[in-house]
Amino acid sequence: MAQQKKPTVTAVIMAGGKGERFWPRSRDRAPKQFLSLTDDGETMLQQTVRRLDGLLRSEHIYVVTNAEHLALAKQQLPDLPKTNLLAEPIARNTAPCIALAAAVIRKRHGDAVMLVLPADHIIRHRSLCRDILRKAMDAAATGAHLVTVGITPTYPETGYGYIEFTQDESAMQGVYRVEAFCEKPSAETAKAYVRSGRYLWNSGMFAWRTSVYCNALRAHLPAVADFADRITAVCDTPQFDAVLAEEFPKLPSVSVDYGVLEKSGQLYTIPAGFGWDDVGSWPALGRVAKTDTNGNYRNGDIMTVGTKNCVFYGGKRLIAAVGLENIVLVDTDDAVLACSAENAQNVRKITEMLREQGRADLL
Amino acid sequence: MAQQKKPTVTAVIMAGGKGERFWPRSRDRAPKQFLSLTDDGETMLQQTVRRLDGLLRSEHIYVVTNAEHLALAKQQLPDLPKTNLLAEPIARNTAPCIALAAAVIRKRHGDAVMLVLPADHIIRHRSLCRDILRKAMDAAATGAHLVTVGITPTYPETGYGYIEFTQDESAMQGVYRVEAFCEKPSAETAKAYVRSGRYLWNSGMFAWRTSVYCNALRAHLPAVADFADRITAVCDTPQFDAVLAEEFPKLPSVSVDYGVLEKSGQLYTIPAGFGWDDVGSWPALGRVAKTDTNGNYRNGDIMTVGTKNCVFYGGKRLIAAVGLENIVLVDTDDAVLACSAENAQNVRKITEMLREQGRADLL
Repeated sequence: MAQQKKPTVTAVIMAGGKGERFWPRSRDRAPKQFLSLTDDGETMLQQTVRRLDGLLRSEHIYVVTNAEHLALAKQQLPDLPKTNLLAEPIARNTAPCIALAAAVIRKRHGDAVMLVLPADHIIRHRSLCRDILRKAMDAAATGAHLVTVGITPTYPETGYGYIEFTQDESAMQGVYRVEAFCEKPSAETAKAYVRSGRYLWNSGMFAWRTSVYCNALRAHLPAVADFADRITAVCDTPQFDAVLAEEFPKLPSVSVDYGVLEKSGQLYTIPAGFGWDDVGSWPALGRVAKTDTNGNYRNGDIMTVGTKNCVFYGGKRLIAAVGLENIVLVDTDDAVLACSAENAQNVRKITEMLREQGRADLL
Repeated sequence: MAQQKKPTVTAVIMAGGKGERFWPRSRDRAPKQFLSLTDDGETMLQQTVRRLDGLLRSEHIYVVTNAEHLALAKQQLPDLPKTNLLAEPIARNTAPCIALAAAVIRKRHGDAVMLVLPADHIIRHRSLCRDILRKAMDAAATGAHLVTVGITPTYPETGYGYIEFTQDESAMQGVYRVEAFCEKPSAETAKAYVRSGRYLWNSGMFAWRTSVYCNALRAHLPAVADFADRITAVCDTPQFDAVLAEEFPKLPSVSVDYGVLEKSGQLYTIPAGFGWDDVGSWPALGRVAKTDTNGNYRNGDIMTVGTKNCVFYGGKRLIAAVGLENIVLVDTDDAVLACSAENAQNVRKITEMLREQGRADLL
């Protein structure tokens, strides 16, 4: 495909997550991105779409979600064209998810820019974010770049992946070449990363043209590239659903970071700071939302004595806490979760146990 | 009153506690002693009465409770004579409570032995306990002794009062003179107490004759002694209820330990070990009831990951715990309590706050 002077700009919102670390609030029926965890009216998915106001037209916004949640996504986003909501028959991680969107967008909009955004992150400074996304779009439009948004770390978080970047600016102002992707570090390594000034948090927000992504797939994940070609061929034809249902489940489950970006020599990053948080597990609410003077996040009917740095997410009942520190407590109609903040990732083990025990009513 | 050769033996079960440290399971309507915390069928009050099987006749068993709970006590103890259930119009701690019982018993049974027992303790070895109670009854019958049952400490508990006793046996075998009553000690002091072998836990179980107790009241709490005389005078007359309602609220609120025993020169103790626990707050369930291999007490639908030495008291919901240690979690229909084991005493502060806020429905 020939490069256009002014490519169309599209956005792909990845809304296929399970949100299991937010059990028991997040359930199979309505995972995290379909909820408003901080109870500010809009769901995280709706907030993600609203973040794009003024950046691009709603008919250019695509959402990829699990087939199970397609109806819910349509209901939450009535202003998007129904044909822009794409359903994964099964979860296959981010590389195939983005490939599906790229294949459809390529058919409909040619070699468009794709802004790829997770549906379940929180961004405090919306206009700063918009400026950075605009810069990412521009950087993606002008060349064969895979562009990531890197967040300047504000503390040595061990739950995020990091991006190492060169200090020398590239041809474009504010856009830097990526040296390496780094897995979630130890506490010590994270501190060194933050001190060095050469590391950014991997936000999972990306920008590239459809051709650039599909070429990268061809080079590093050829089976996924073949899939994308087949999807482009049948896009907006009666065969689309059948081909998707047939081919998608066969794809490897692989992340775009590991399967494509780490292996590419064309990777750039835009360092940014706009109050980003991936809201990865319950303790994140203590970071992204308002807390009391003891650092407790309180949602619901909460009463505390000698308690600090806790997250309380109540249901219909009173939650009373005495002498707690760094504890998460979540109350719902049918389940209560109590969890130490440092083990919040392991909430998944509870959902695994429930699945093994066939207790689907609680999932 | 002249001393009899074979005095009648009576028991006085003190069932006037509020059980606030067991909120939200224990409520104003049905405090701890009216519940079966370990779900073994009988309530703690019923267990206390059953513990006396074979020791004395049920018409000699008295129960003193708050007027509010009189109906509940009657319902739980259908085999006791209704006139043996005495109602305090208001809580005035143990010295007046025992005075009320002594005044009634003195009228009905003369200078009887009174075995005084709290209604909300757990005793694992029932027959060992019975042997000790029999010994206490005998010791009380033979002289002007105030006899306490002292528990040989099995660990340096800081939540109990201690009794220091002399190593020299008194005239009676296994009965020792008390040197001092000691307040709840620091952790270090408690360790020294246990090491020394000279200290016992104050179990709150006592034995004495009515005359001995009333004489001690006359010496140390004369207002309470006057009250007892008035009650004896009207006992089993139509004036009883009115005099009780009029006089009892005027009495000082004072414990028998502080108001009478500490000041007496006639105090003896019987060291005993029969698996006693005062079940003073939620963490006690981890000591007195069966736990899993990680030391967790589990009551209800409980699922744990990496969790140890916790107490889970469930309601209708699943309780899921991740990465917890030394935490108490209690779920009821209208309230959830989460509490660190070391702050379990402070559950009272929650009930205080609820009372201040007029949230009686939760009390």
